[in-house]
Amino acid sequence: MEWKNDITRILNIEYPIVQAPMFGVATTAMVVASSKANILGSLPLGDLSPEKCIEVIRETKKLIDTPFAVNIFVNTIPFVSHELKERYNTTKEYIENLAKQHHLDVSLPEIEELKLTSYHEQIEAIITEKCKILSFTFGNLDQQSIDKLKSHGTVLIGTCTSVEEAKILERSGIDIICVQGIEAGGHRGSFTNDNTSQIGGLSLLSQVYDSVTVPLIYAGGIYNAKTLLAVKVLGAQGFQIGSLFLGSKESALNEAEKTRLRNTSEKDIVLTKSFSGKFARGVKNVFIEALENTDYILPYPYQYKLTSELKNVAKSYNNTDFVSIWAGQSLHSFDGKSTAEIISNLIEQTEYSEKAYL
Amino acid sequence: MEWKNDITRILNIEYPIVQAPMFGVATTAMVVASSKANILGSLPLGDLSPEKCIEVIRETKKLIDTPFAVNIFVNTIPFVSHELKERYNTTKEYIENLAKQHHLDVSLPEIEELKLTSYHEQIEAIITEKCKILSFTFGNLDQQSIDKLKSHGTVLIGTCTSVEEAKILERSGIDIICVQGIEAGGHRGSFTNDNTSQIGGLSLLSQVYDSVTVPLIYAGGIYNAKTLLAVKVLGAQGFQIGSLFLGSKESALNEAEKTRLRNTSEKDIVLTKSFSGKFARGVKNVFIEALENTDYILPYPYQYKLTSELKNVAKSYNNTDFVSIWAGQSLHSFDGKSTAEIISNLIEQTEYSEKAYL
Repeated sequence: MEWKNDITRILNIEYPIVQAPMFGVATTAMVVASSKANILGSLPLGDLSPEKCIEVIRETKKLIDTPFAVNIFVNTIPFVSHELKERYNTTKEYIENLAKQHHLDVSLPEIEELKLTSYHEQIEAIITEKCKILSFTFGNLDQQSIDKLKSHGTVLIGTCTSVEEAKILERSGIDIICVQGIEAGGHRGSFTNDNTSQIGGLSLLSQVYDSVTVPLIYAGGIYNAKTLLAVKVLGAQGFQIGSLFLGSKESALNEAEKTRLRNTSEKDIVLTKSFSGKFARGVKNVFIEALENTDYILPYPYQYKLTSELKNVAKSYNNTDFVSIWAGQSLHSFDGKSTAEIISNLIEQTEYSEKAYL
Repeated sequence: MEWKNDITRILNIEYPIVQAPMFGVATTAMVVASSKANILGSLPLGDLSPEKCIEVIRETKKLIDTPFAVNIFVNTIPFVSHELKERYNTTKEYIENLAKQHHLDVSLPEIEELKLTSYHEQIEAIITEKCKILSFTFGNLDQQSIDKLKSHGTVLIGTCTSVEEAKILERSGIDIICVQGIEAGGHRGSFTNDNTSQIGGLSLLSQVYDSVTVPLIYAGGIYNAKTLLAVKVLGAQGFQIGSLFLGSKESALNEAEKTRLRNTSEKDIVLTKSFSGKFARGVKNVFIEALENTDYILPYPYQYKLTSELKNVAKSYNNTDFVSIWAGQSLHSFDGKSTAEIISNLIEQTEYSEKAYL
């Protein structure tokens, strides 16, 4: 199989495969292993402070000198109105009580205690650290940030969940677009539609391919040679893999979470706003069932910040009913292979199967 | 391209392409044109009475002697409890008032006036008429019906929206499974999950392929060579096309509906229970927006029967805000080509593109 293409050239990698930036799951070790396997590792910065961003970037750079991407959330932070503060307090109380009913004692932070990070501060850190590749989700960068990053030679990868979003990213001069199908695990990257776009990969990727000219990475459902090759036929030059790494040695999921994932059936993989205020796909549990369709879901990032401590405490007790286990619609064994093995298996399988198809 | 495979052999057709059984859209003319183009035409029987089934089957048979499928809805009919009757009356009043507010004067039927058809009666008609191929959705046939149809040599095609449903169909001895991705237009064929399964084609088809051994048809998002070939790579041997025919000369949509469809953007294609009580994908309009998330949605088939007259009247006035225009997630020009042209274009395009891929 000819792996070399626009994506490998622009990103300076050997295989146009991307380890998904799964904040909370993708460790530095996973990024390093991906990079050493000659694919693109993605270091998720999530809502880390600029100082913490610098720390994890330096930690990664110490271990590899091959390219890797950093990933940020591009979102606005809603003003804390009196109404929002009241809703925050009610939600905090509801969640604390819910946890207590399930024998989990947590005290969640007051709204005044939350430390919110603006992505602009993170971009400063990224420029300071001379990161070569920046991927982002939840929005499009403002033009000033785009111009600044480009003047520093940073390659930009934006995320879309609709044709409309793909066109917006292309018009802004984004270098590569990551097309996220509804199959994908974790947060939806949508940013233009209140009814978060839920388009399946077959329809979405082929229509985005028909509508823009920048190279495309596809994310959502790729777990074997067949899905990778199908996505190639649909027009993607890059292949983003997330869920395939969830059970890996380098995954930050603990054994309880990995076991829960292995015992999950297709009808338990749901889209929910419960943990963060934004739609994300993952394993249904007590927390999601209790919050779904209630008023106890604050706008992002407040719900996300509010539930962070809950998740930390639950995780420390191996309680998988109060943590978010994000996963996509392609279920598989989630076995404990290493990141390197997972990548080489996928590449070998694809090269072998390709002869039958492409 | 080698089109011959298990599907063409079992169904005795030249190209393993299936014209989707779109009740209300797929006319006899469309079925005949499909059959003459050497693909499988599907005659939708929907909720037609056995007498009417016989009539349309005979009408079709008079025009072609090539194979075509008949399609039925396999569903149970909920008992009319006192509570359901009350809800029916409230919903009837709500919808009549809503229509009146939009200058549409309709009088919807009383619940006692509804003529409900059991699929068992339809099966009798199908056997009487010696139909060779029966496809079905909304459920699995009971074992007695399966045995009876098989003893008459009828080929059975069941619809699944999850791996679980595919396994149920295979265990029952269904000959071919139609895998319906979330991309598909019209009604979801789900029958095991209250939270109707919403799995994207990439994840669903590849996982169903890994889980059963019967030949698979895929439905959802196929609109050009690329999507057809991708679906082939994922393991489908048959390719069901629905939305591609919506704008065709043989489509039962009127000009107002076709125009509405052409002016629809991706964010207006929604899943809704408003028209029938079962989830279906189509064009958002006044009716859907008014009913979504209200209590004015009865269980199938009552909502469906209740709104039938509304749709008929609205259609006669070219009012596209009170009709159901079902469509999938792959939008395209919906131009007025003939069914025959659409099919031959797709076949030619696929044969041409295949050289680049497969």
